Amino acid sequence: MRVTVLDTTLRDGAQAEGVSFSLRDKLEIIGLLDSLGVDYIEAGQPSNPKDMELFARNPSLNRAKLAAFGPTVRKGMSPAEDENLQSLLATSAPVIVLFGKASLLHVDHVLRCSPSENLRMIEESCRCAKNAGREVIFDAEHFFDGAKENAEYAFRCLEAAAMGGADILTLCDTNGGEFTGELEELVACAAKRYSLPVGIHAHNDMELAAANSIAAVRAGARHVQGTLCGNGERCGNANLATVIAALKGKLGYELGADLSELTRTARGVADIANLTLSPAQPFVGRSAFAHKAGMHIDAVLKNPATFEHMPPELVGNQRRTLTSELSGRTQLLDRIRHMAPELAKSSPELSALADTLKTREKAGYAYESAEASFELLARRQLGLYSPFFDLVYFKTFSEQDGADTVKASALVKIRVGGEERLACGEGDGPVHALDSALRDALSPFYREVRDMRLIDYKVRVLNPQEATAAQVRVLITSSDGTGIWSTVGVSTDIIHASWQALSDSVEYKLAGGGRT
Amino acid sequence: MRVTVLDTTLRDGAQAEGVSFSLRDKLEIIGLLDSLGVDYIEAGQPSNPKDMELFARNPSLNRAKLAAFGPTVRKGMSPAEDENLQSLLATSAPVIVLFGKASLLHVDHVLRCSPSENLRMIEESCRCAKNAGREVIFDAEHFFDGAKENAEYAFRCLEAAAMGGADILTLCDTNGGEFTGELEELVACAAKRYSLPVGIHAHNDMELAAANSIAAVRAGARHVQGTLCGNGERCGNANLATVIAALKGKLGYELGADLSELTRTARGVADIANLTLSPAQPFVGRSAFAHKAGMHIDAVLKNPATFEHMPPELVGNQRRTLTSELSGRTQLLDRIRHMAPELAKSSPELSALADTLKTREKAGYAYESAEASFELLARRQLGLYSPFFDLVYFKTFSEQDGADTVKASALVKIRVGGEERLACGEGDGPVHALDSALRDALSPFYREVRDMRLIDYKVRVLNPQEATAAQVRVLITSSDGTGIWSTVGVSTDIIHASWQALSDSVEYKLAGGGRT
Repeated sequence: MRVTVLDTTLRDGAQAEGVSFSLRDKLEIIGLLDSLGVDYIEAGQPSNPKDMELFARNPSLNRAKLAAFGPTVRKGMSPAEDENLQSLLATSAPVIVLFGKASLLHVDHVLRCSPSENLRMIEESCRCAKNAGREVIFDAEHFFDGAKENAEYAFRCLEAAAMGGADILTLCDTNGGEFTGELEELVACAAKRYSLPVGIHAHNDMELAAANSIAAVRAGARHVQGTLCGNGERCGNANLATVIAALKGKLGYELGADLSELTRTARGVADIANLTLSPAQPFVGRSAFAHKAGMHIDAVLKNPATFEHMPPELVGNQRRTLTSELSGRTQLLDRIRHMAPELAKSSPELSALADTLKTREKAGYAYESAEASFELLARRQLGLYSPFFDLVYFKTFSEQDGADTVKASALVKIRVGGEERLACGEGDGPVHALDSALRDALSPFYREVRDMRLIDYKVRVLNPQEATAAQVRVLITSSDGTGIWSTVGVSTDIIHASWQALSDSVEYKLAGGGRT
Repeated sequence: MRVTVLDTTLRDGAQAEGVSFSLRDKLEIIGLLDSLGVDYIEAGQPSNPKDMELFARNPSLNRAKLAAFGPTVRKGMSPAEDENLQSLLATSAPVIVLFGKASLLHVDHVLRCSPSENLRMIEESCRCAKNAGREVIFDAEHFFDGAKENAEYAFRCLEAAAMGGADILTLCDTNGGEFTGELEELVACAAKRYSLPVGIHAHNDMELAAANSIAAVRAGARHVQGTLCGNGERCGNANLATVIAALKGKLGYELGADLSELTRTARGVADIANLTLSPAQPFVGRSAFAHKAGMHIDAVLKNPATFEHMPPELVGNQRRTLTSELSGRTQLLDRIRHMAPELAKSSPELSALADTLKTREKAGYAYESAEASFELLARRQLGLYSPFFDLVYFKTFSEQDGADTVKASALVKIRVGGEERLACGEGDGPVHALDSALRDALSPFYREVRDMRLIDYKVRVLNPQEATAAQVRVLITSSDGTGIWSTVGVSTDIIHASWQALSDSVEYKLAGGGRT
């Protein structure tokens, strides 16, 4: 059963707090969504000049169709008089999404017109767009709330759109307050009533947007709207990565989108939108197939189906087993096999490593999120490592002279082979200054450190009752453009903890690390 | 209809990547959950020595019962021989949660015992815990997957637990791969079959955990398990903030938890767990009731029901409109009444303060958790404050000379009246050194700073994509033995941010502050 997908990351998704797109962002996201293979990309409201500029660019697409979004004509106006509708027609977008009210509360309180006038506005707007040769999707705003106030009227709104020639009738849970059971009944009823495809547009105010979208399709909807990373007004829109993975990957519906590109595309869109994709994000998050409890890891190594509801590769993600105090000997062996294939589960080296790990985790190190530091720790412990440089000393300085800014600077002296080198750096804070100075000191010996940059820096105070003398854990994530790796440091002194993580990060890069 | 709630933040929630709790974290979270009013707090697995220590503390609770978690006895063992079961009984926890397999795949591949042996293990474990006078919750792991493989056997596992005397039978979607429709059928079937309450334990691998938990209760379940912030293995557990808000706030089920404390408690637990609560988190997120689109804001001002599915106050959250600062004025007035009783809602001073607050909160200051800094900010802005000292300069130094420790020291020069004083200090890290030096510099002028100490120090990186140049928020809590107060600082430089919070802390003390 074919289900079409409309992504509204660039329209409803831009209504999320903290999200705003430049024209270039929008074009990049359109490219990613097109190559993923969604059917429609709702790119904006041409009544907004910034969005009009985007439509004027007329980006060429291989698989998706571009959609322009706007309201039905205003009360008392004909389509010819309404500038919003005319701005939609002024674009060359092959698809026009028209939204109209399907709730009497909104007709009375927001539009402040008669119920029949609203029906006219819907029907004439659809007809006008259709006569202009466009594909027309009608978004029935507040349909579910409206149906509860007056079901007869909510359905008459859909009929007005159908009479006007709409191609798809989308039922919107605009406020996200609808429970799954009630929603699927109304969807089933609409799907039976019309020969046109019925669509679903769900919001996540009760954390039900994905559930409701999936249930709607199972109840007969043939069109789903949402955003690939779930961003949108308030609590967001239905997360399309989830909906696509569940419908296509688990339930076998036919969708245009390529499952195996899902993880890569969602992460790419999140990057451009400057959204932090939760590691726990279903299907596409970094932890979605990460196993931490020892018993789970044991079982997954015996048979992945024991603790995985689908193979991660299906959605382009991967399995990870996390090293922590909860993990067992088997998993540890598995993780160091590539560096020490001769070790067995009973090897004394393995149990020494397990002990070290336990001691360090107790001290506050968290290796599950710092694979690179784990790798270095294991190599050092197994005698498989010689360092790329030695620290002679470093000094950092922070000073404030009354004015409200602090200057941070650092000196680093390192030794490589027999040669010593001193370098200095400034930065936003002592760690930043230290990072600059260290990389400057190393760069004549190792060109590759110039390509590295820190992309994430996290600080966690471990026993805050000790106040400023508490243990501090620093996690650093670095990238060289292709690989990404994470390192950890722990100390009572944040500078010392940061230094450990910084120097591990550089050592790992020099040792040829950097996973893709 | 009464539904009981079990929070497993400290057990299943600790299986989330990046989450680990100190004993103190655990005790604080237990306190928060108890005052929220959940029925059961699953605090850990006593087979783990760290968790055993927690149970040995025997924290006193007002509303919730503490639960210890562990597996059924091992194959071929009697309860008396099984050390895991004995460790559960060694705690004084009034509730024992026993998990056993309800899937033949797991019996065959993981336990590697006969189906009937597994039934014996379940029944005898429950009986043993029950005979020891405990309330017994049986968690039927993989129940839904198991029922699909062999429904007869999955239900026989529940019966074995019931025969053993279990008080609640929890159906677990351990892998999070169950769709809502199929899940509610099985729950309804189990709820009809047993006179015991049936529970639901859902995972979020398909973003359905909240939907499935809600649907399960509507299908007859009377017990829900999850974590207040949704953290857990892989994609997490059912988010209890959502489930509680939906069941109690929207559907009218009787739950022990106080709805109006939900937002505050979820944010408190997230802070302790160092989880980043998404702004878009349903019900409790900062953006959950934030309106951005102009049309939405207009409509909400006419009638909040037009774009809100519930009043935000119901769950202790608040409405925000992102383009206009109309909200909060009344509340702000209330907070400064003690220092400026003459101000009215329309006073220009009030709107200037509201603007400053908005600007600073946008920059990352969080005055909600830093009342003392708020107090100082308001007094400064209203011209009601003269500082107790001026900073002439400070310098901090961190140095490492190859050995694996860093030395931190600081100089601080301050001016009080016409007199300048230079002092120095050492410490565990530059902030500690700065704190020492500042208090030494001030002590001849103000004896009372000698009684002060920092009791909490928290660091949060606000926009981690910028790595070490990210904004850092420092929260400091201080005490003088009777009062406790908190202050905040924000900067790209952690030393600068710490200085702001440190100096606010001292100023507040000198100004006679210190709440009890």
